[in-house]
Amino acid sequence: MKALTLTAEWAPKPGYDMSDSERELRRPRNANMTWKAPKLTLGDAPDPALKPDHVMLEIAAVGICGSDMHMYEAGADGYMIYPGLVHTPNILGHEFAGRIVEVGADVKDLQLGDLVAVEEIQWCGECTACRRGFVNHCLDIEELGFTIPGAMAQYLPARAKHCWKLDEVAERYGEEEALVMGAMVEPTGVSYQGLFNRLRNWQPGNNVVIFGAGPIGLAAEALVIAAGAGQVIMFDPSASRRQIALNMGASAALDPTGIDLDEAIMQHTLGRGVDYVVECAGFADKTIEPLDRCLAVNASIIDIGMGGDNPTVPIVAYKRMGVQYAGSLGHAGGPFMHVIRLMAAGRIDMRKMVSARLPLDDALAAFKRLESRADAKIILHPN
Amino acid sequence: MKALTLTAEWAPKPGYDMSDSERELRRPRNANMTWKAPKLTLGDAPDPALKPDHVMLEIAAVGICGSDMHMYEAGADGYMIYPGLVHTPNILGHEFAGRIVEVGADVKDLQLGDLVAVEEIQWCGECTACRRGFVNHCLDIEELGFTIPGAMAQYLPARAKHCWKLDEVAERYGEEEALVMGAMVEPTGVSYQGLFNRLRNWQPGNNVVIFGAGPIGLAAEALVIAAGAGQVIMFDPSASRRQIALNMGASAALDPTGIDLDEAIMQHTLGRGVDYVVECAGFADKTIEPLDRCLAVNASIIDIGMGGDNPTVPIVAYKRMGVQYAGSLGHAGGPFMHVIRLMAAGRIDMRKMVSARLPLDDALAAFKRLESRADAKIILHPN
Amino acid sequence: MKALTLTAEWAPKPGYDMSDSERELRRPRNANMTWKAPKLTLGDAPDPALKPDHVMLEIAAVGICGSDMHMYEAGADGYMIYPGLVHTPNILGHEFAGRIVEVGADVKDLQLGDLVAVEEIQWCGECTACRRGFVNHCLDIEELGFTIPGAMAQYLPARAKHCWKLDEVAERYGEEEALVMGAMVEPTGVSYQGLFNRLRNWQPGNNVVIFGAGPIGLAAEALVIAAGAGQVIMFDPSASRRQIALNMGASAALDPTGIDLDEAIMQHTLGRGVDYVVECAGFADKTIEPLDRCLAVNASIIDIGMGGDNPTVPIVAYKRMGVQYAGSLGHAGGPFMHVIRLMAAGRIDMRKMVSARLPLDDALAAFKRLESRADAKIILHPN
Amino acid sequence: MKALTLTAEWAPKPGYDMSDSERELRRPRNANMTWKAPKLTLGDAPDPALKPDHVMLEIAAVGICGSDMHMYEAGADGYMIYPGLVHTPNILGHEFAGRIVEVGADVKDLQLGDLVAVEEIQWCGECTACRRGFVNHCLDIEELGFTIPGAMAQYLPARAKHCWKLDEVAERYGEEEALVMGAMVEPTGVSYQGLFNRLRNWQPGNNVVIFGAGPIGLAAEALVIAAGAGQVIMFDPSASRRQIALNMGASAALDPTGIDLDEAIMQHTLGRGVDYVVECAGFADKTIEPLDRCLAVNASIIDIGMGGDNPTVPIVAYKRMGVQYAGSLGHAGGPFMHVIRLMAAGRIDMRKMVSARLPLDDALAAFKRLESRADAKIILHPN
Repeated sequence: MKALTLTAEWAPKPGYDMSDSERELRRPRNANMTWKAPKLTLGDAPDPALKPDHVMLEIAAVGICGSDMHMYEAGADGYMIYPGLVHTPNILGHEFAGRIVEVGADVKDLQLGDLVAVEEIQWCGECTACRRGFVNHCLDIEELGFTIPGAMAQYLPARAKHCWKLDEVAERYGEEEALVMGAMVEPTGVSYQGLFNRLRNWQPGNNVVIFGAGPIGLAAEALVIAAGAGQVIMFDPSASRRQIALNMGASAALDPTGIDLDEAIMQHTLGRGVDYVVECAGFADKTIEPLDRCLAVNASIIDIGMGGDNPTVPIVAYKRMGVQYAGSLGHAGGPFMHVIRLMAAGRIDMRKMVSARLPLDDALAAFKRLESRADAKIILHPN
Repeated sequence: MKALTLTAEWAPKPGYDMSDSERELRRPRNANMTWKAPKLTLGDAPDPALKPDHVMLEIAAVGICGSDMHMYEAGADGYMIYPGLVHTPNILGHEFAGRIVEVGADVKDLQLGDLVAVEEIQWCGECTACRRGFVNHCLDIEELGFTIPGAMAQYLPARAKHCWKLDEVAERYGEEEALVMGAMVEPTGVSYQGLFNRLRNWQPGNNVVIFGAGPIGLAAEALVIAAGAGQVIMFDPSASRRQIALNMGASAALDPTGIDLDEAIMQHTLGRGVDYVVECAGFADKTIEPLDRCLAVNASIIDIGMGGDNPTVPIVAYKRMGVQYAGSLGHAGGPFMHVIRLMAAGRIDMRKMVSARLPLDDALAAFKRLESRADAKIILHPN
Repeated sequence: MKALTLTAEWAPKPGYDMSDSERELRRPRNANMTWKAPKLTLGDAPDPALKPDHVMLEIAAVGICGSDMHMYEAGADGYMIYPGLVHTPNILGHEFAGRIVEVGADVKDLQLGDLVAVEEIQWCGECTACRRGFVNHCLDIEELGFTIPGAMAQYLPARAKHCWKLDEVAERYGEEEALVMGAMVEPTGVSYQGLFNRLRNWQPGNNVVIFGAGPIGLAAEALVIAAGAGQVIMFDPSASRRQIALNMGASAALDPTGIDLDEAIMQHTLGRGVDYVVECAGFADKTIEPLDRCLAVNASIIDIGMGGDNPTVPIVAYKRMGVQYAGSLGHAGGPFMHVIRLMAAGRIDMRKMVSARLPLDDALAAFKRLESRADAKIILHPN
Repeated sequence: MKALTLTAEWAPKPGYDMSDSERELRRPRNANMTWKAPKLTLGDAPDPALKPDHVMLEIAAVGICGSDMHMYEAGADGYMIYPGLVHTPNILGHEFAGRIVEVGADVKDLQLGDLVAVEEIQWCGECTACRRGFVNHCLDIEELGFTIPGAMAQYLPARAKHCWKLDEVAERYGEEEALVMGAMVEPTGVSYQGLFNRLRNWQPGNNVVIFGAGPIGLAAEALVIAAGAGQVIMFDPSASRRQIALNMGASAALDPTGIDLDEAIMQHTLGRGVDYVVECAGFADKTIEPLDRCLAVNASIIDIGMGGDNPTVPIVAYKRMGVQYAGSLGHAGGPFMHVIRLMAAGRIDMRKMVSARLPLDDALAAFKRLESRADAKIILHPN
């Protein structure tokens, strides 16, 4: 079958501390410390086989994610930018939807023809973290499109328990559009997890600041608007992304370059400050770190964006205002169900951030085009 | 000044257990056990005086509430229907907004001309419940329009700390409309408190069932839609109220009379069941009690409606599905701030449920008209 | 191998509504509507076989639970008292610990010789409830000792993911005692789930009322004392159980028969009322239902006990005081980990409630003896 | 009356940004940027007057707090170390208990002779933060012993709503000891607020790390042990304080100097890592910042200690493990009630950390002695 494959050079930085298993499997915890000179190739890959608890998917739509870009791009040191778990060579693609074309013998709840979106986080269900319900922090995790083959290919076998049906969405929008929306359940789920499942203290009426109007930031925007935000202030240096953010309903979309964030936020919240800060830019040292006077009492900071330097936290301000901060990762364990329902009820329409729908054959050009960060989301169609 | 006054006959039911203070103050915990033959009169009342920590309001708009109806109406036994705290004689009216025409000497944050909505719950701020933040359960509570004079009158003095400014709403809609919306902050706050401040487990994407499409139920509807509900199913025997519910965005609005609630709810949630049940009808024995198969895992039941018999709770179902239930009362301690922000951001427009705006002179006719429960909300204008 | 087996007569009550699958599998949702004339037999049973993801346990200690008693006992109508899921014939026993004597081929984290306690709730990990972390409400549940063979036998195969190691406890107390304590992780986990995982609002310093000083009630007592309860008031009609409750540290242990619960609770909390009510008696209509004046602001009611009639809930009191109620069931998904740590740190010692340790050969006599409810917990040793 | 007074030199650092009101009132947000050369004097002060909503206290016991030390001590730059709100000249002392010797005319719930502990946080009850229940973040705050006169004096007038009665404690321990314990309600309340009221996710069985075995750290230790901690690991460079920590029940008490914190914590938690980290040392850059591999999934970090540089937060680790962090400040709004109940039920006995009880006349020597940080808590008796 046709597939888009990432390769890179194994070159752990001197002094980088790795476990034996990370080294043997070439599956390091921090890709940015080990993988050099990343490269994408579009070509043939072997047809995948089906296990009894899996279903085989014909991939209908797959999005290109900021993390895909961070695996494809190298930093100034020549290393992959992405700081998390990565194995290469590997087929990319973890935001996708497809149609079931074969059903494993042990699968109970899914049928031929069902449309599904799939959790990228391949949680094991057996480790202590999974058993306690923290499946995004599975101790024996695999990640579709990061450590095992992803969906920028014609077919992908997926474990049944990681699949969520799109029937409600198809009922409202038809199958074709449901599959495009389905490809956006994963990134929207990442934002959902951060916003509503981490600190569990969201309140309708909250004033919100979102850093980054890339796909995760825009998904966060759609979600907070759907969940009853007060003022929603977006920050992004890209004018085209700010325009998309405004089109999706932001109260304000500002270029953060060289401005006083505290002042801007106070002004756009009528002096009341921000209740929810969402980091989706991947530069916490430039986004979270400067915030001080603009934090309202009981403000929450949700840190989703990968990349950037570790921020310094202003501990006196966090105490004076009673601020909480949470790192967030993943989307498994429920967000897919809620995101699909929000789509089916018409509360969010993530197609608003799609700037192009292209065949898989145009994948390399699409990655190139995204380097400028002018687009929000590009969808590839492998079939 | 002109005012609408409630009177009733003091006739405690034999065997009703009352404290000395309830008896002396004629301010019983359960009005339906003590007050007989309630009656409304429109007439003159003495002009109120101002205390140093109060502001004097010229009342611009005041809504008629289900509780007002329950104080005005008698049951089959001739007693007031309302089961909570009531003193008579008293001026009714606790859902209102007005303009500040005089400012007490000790008031810091409010000014002449400010438009405000006011918490009906006059929490003391000194008792243990208040100090712990449970101001709706103040141990030394007074209630505007229940135990002390309310706003169906030309003027009302209000304590500054119970006032919330409407400037954000006026900026969007102009002063006149902001005052009408302001009169609906209180009932909307009652629903907000139940939905978002009691169990603190709301999740966007929840399927919701709301019993009662009166003002509290419709406010709950507006709020859950603004907060990202999945399916929203309303139940009300009144066809006209069901129509308003549909106009406000309900997925379905059903007559509960004689139907199998479990079955209807399963059908309208694609077999997935309900996550959030909101009782705003005041008949928990007929609404909450029958629910069994339709309850999704982790379902929550919020009981706001006053009146009706105590329901029997199906404890096996509640255990099997991990259900939680919470009684909710009041709106003080934050909901006003959030409701005003939701109005100012255009997330809710409670004017959709206003069926008439009348001068205070038409108050008696308005109460009469509401007996049929065909209207949702009638707003009176005392000035 | 030797085993204790429950049999009963299949006699669904007229009009009892069952699914086809409940009927075919003889595994009804409500045992008390279907199983008549229950009976226990001690005898030989076939040796169990091992699956690849299971371990084989040599059972060291197994407790007799209130639910075991409710399956063994018939009510006035001749039907089993237990109201939940039951299949017969079946080997009883779901509170147990054992030593691993064989390890399945796919098992990763367990080894020969490990001591483990096992979750009775055999959650599937694949259904929507499990995927969302609500494993106690698994839609495809099996229950050890209820629907599939339990541990009142010499051997039992257990799925690895349901096992929790007791090494920390053995380090402190030695293997033999760790296995006895291990048999009490399950009932203690049931109380832990109700107290700390349902409403997630426990506060050290809470005044607590516990109904029932059987094993679940005593486990709840040990847990709330370990978790910083203020006053702890136990209710049980059995004088010997009240004595155990006092020995375990209760502030008061009272006979509820014929007394005014509100008054007794107010007296023993210095007039401050109760913050946490825990139903472990299985008579919610006699325990939860009467509570009114004794409920403190923000009181929580946790309903664990199975059996008894559905209680009527006093909705005005629940609103006035801002009360929440939660049904609780199970212990899977984390409580075992926390309970084992509490044992290992010496914070709880559940052996205080063990009144006898007997060989499995004495099982029938032990069940007989427990009919009087004078004992708290009897431990059987199958090996 | 006799009193201990703090004076300092007003010398705002160049470039420090202050509001006009901070400058006029000499009540800056950051004492360490403005007050130089702090100095204590024991001498006469005018007798205080009583307001109608206050009670007059005869001070029985007052503790010396780490914050007192940080106001008394200057850093290398000659400025006060304490980084929060301070006015001078002022009488120090905010951890205290006393007996009511006069009752204001408007006071309802307190009587002559009552023993009380008093919240240092003088929340106004009128600002938006207070109305929403965030009284520790009052926008119009005064602080006893920081911005207004404290209790290192013979008498102090206290507002009734900030007083909490010690009757339960006196019933168990007698009046004299209740007053000493009462002086420790405030610091214990600070730890309670951080541990149980900020993230609201405490779970009995949590493994805990506490940095700092000064009074706040030891109070945190007592509280987590009373609340069912698993392993409790304390870090402090002072050998004598580590000994007190061990006496109070810590699993381990380690000198953090020069060791690998991750490794030490993993070793003392059997490789399971820490669930709750509590910063009470005031050096977040040396305590919180280095933590990485030792953080368990869903770990929480509570930052209470004032002082030290802002820490850098390792955002990848916080995401990978799903970590949350909260700044905590204050003790008002409930913790006093719960702490007093924990004392009255015998769950905590804070006298274990008292190393000396001295007359107020020895105050200067006591401050001198505390410079070495060998003591935990010294109690002064003004009467």
